[in-house]
Amino acid sequence: MTELVLVGIGTGNPDHLTREAIRALNGADVILIPRKEDAPGLATLRRAILAEVLDRPVPMVEFDLPKRDPAIAEYAARVAAWHDAIAQVWAQAIPPQGRAAMMVWGDPSLYDSTLRIAARLSVDVRVIPGITSVQALCAAHGIPLNEVGEPVLVTTGRRLRDGGWPSDAATVVVMLDGECSFGCLDPAGIDIWWSAYAGMPQQISIAGPLPEVAARIVAARHEARAIHGWIMDIYLMRRRS
Amino acid sequence: MTELVLVGIGTGNPDHLTREAIRALNGADVILIPRKEDAPGLATLRRAILAEVLDRPVPMVEFDLPKRDPAIAEYAARVAAWHDAIAQVWAQAIPPQGRAAMMVWGDPSLYDSTLRIAARLSVDVRVIPGITSVQALCAAHGIPLNEVGEPVLVTTGRRLRDGGWPSDAATVVVMLDGECSFGCLDPAGIDIWWSAYAGMPQQISIAGPLPEVAARIVAARHEARAIHGWIMDIYLMRRRS
Repeated sequence: MTELVLVGIGTGNPDHLTREAIRALNGADVILIPRKEDAPGLATLRRAILAEVLDRPVPMVEFDLPKRDPAIAEYAARVAAWHDAIAQVWAQAIPPQGRAAMMVWGDPSLYDSTLRIAARLSVDVRVIPGITSVQALCAAHGIPLNEVGEPVLVTTGRRLRDGGWPSDAATVVVMLDGECSFGCLDPAGIDIWWSAYAGMPQQISIAGPLPEVAARIVAARHEARAIHGWIMDIYLMRRRS
Repeated sequence: MTELVLVGIGTGNPDHLTREAIRALNGADVILIPRKEDAPGLATLRRAILAEVLDRPVPMVEFDLPKRDPAIAEYAARVAAWHDAIAQVWAQAIPPQGRAAMMVWGDPSLYDSTLRIAARLSVDVRVIPGITSVQALCAAHGIPLNEVGEPVLVTTGRRLRDGGWPSDAATVVVMLDGECSFGCLDPAGIDIWWSAYAGMPQQISIAGPLPEVAARIVAARHEARAIHGWIMDIYLMRRRS
């Protein structure tokens, strides 16, 4: 039987790896390295992290990650077809027995598809938690995620664009947002804390009242994406009551 | 100047510690160990984690954690007074210069008061993220936190009791709940994933439709609390649409 270990690796800093993650990577028979055509720097970063934490040579299998099919209009169906395609590629890359490890940015449970893709395969799955960008963001700014006893909503750029400010929480964390969707909100009374490459040496952080810093964040994001060839960013907003 | 490093240590498993956390603890001039009268096992666990990850002897300063004053009726005022009292104790425990480290269960940003207490002192604060119980819970059950593209609300037992099921999310994570507040909900159509000591050897996990497993969770929690002398538990619920 094959075991597939999904290893949360944090936001790109090798020091984010836990003892459990390092042990799992060193104990794997093979490590799967996906390549994204539009962000080759991410595969390079995976290899750099491994170079830092592996005590012994572990075979790596690289594969090209399929892309979403823009011909499928409905979002959930497009994602499901994409996961099917990725599962097929994994099935070829994973040896028929032994232990395969897959490095996952952040944590395998949070806005990540590896658990759903793995469920399409006949493998035993084990999950190793990793530092999420939510935590790296809060650490970068030295702020609590929640206000005392108050809830926090974690959501996506798409939901923010479609639904506006949510009704249930004064604190909102936005992930998967390539479009600076805070621009769709009435910014009055909202504070924002934004970071790109949170927890990494090239970390950029901007915080302040949304009306004052929104344009600066959009410009910084655009520039950083051009310089590094990829960007991972995240932000937290609080509405003053 | 004193630096205070708030080190997220995960949920009690030394393997949850990141390389960054281990380096920070080893690099401290002093490590602060709070003692809780009603849960002495937690200070023992802190010492056990340190014994596992320290490469050199680091001085430890133990202190008794003040309790909340039940005479202060209003919740926010009671918490603020409690944080003031803790800050006074910290001020005595932290040396006038050098680097002090404080171990924080989970992550310093999530339903934890250390950042707010530290803000009352004249110290430089650095935050090192750690694995949260939210992540340990998802890893224990091998489930994603969110549904595809959907939001997640992180909230407290108190909010759930006072406000019922929130309107903005089909997935709700409940923290700080010593009272099994899921019992206040109409359980029809709700699935629950509950874990105590998530990520530790004594981990207990129960999952299923809330009407079927609620009583079992209440009993398991009661029994485990009696056996171990302390309990840290958390749960995730999803409402079927």
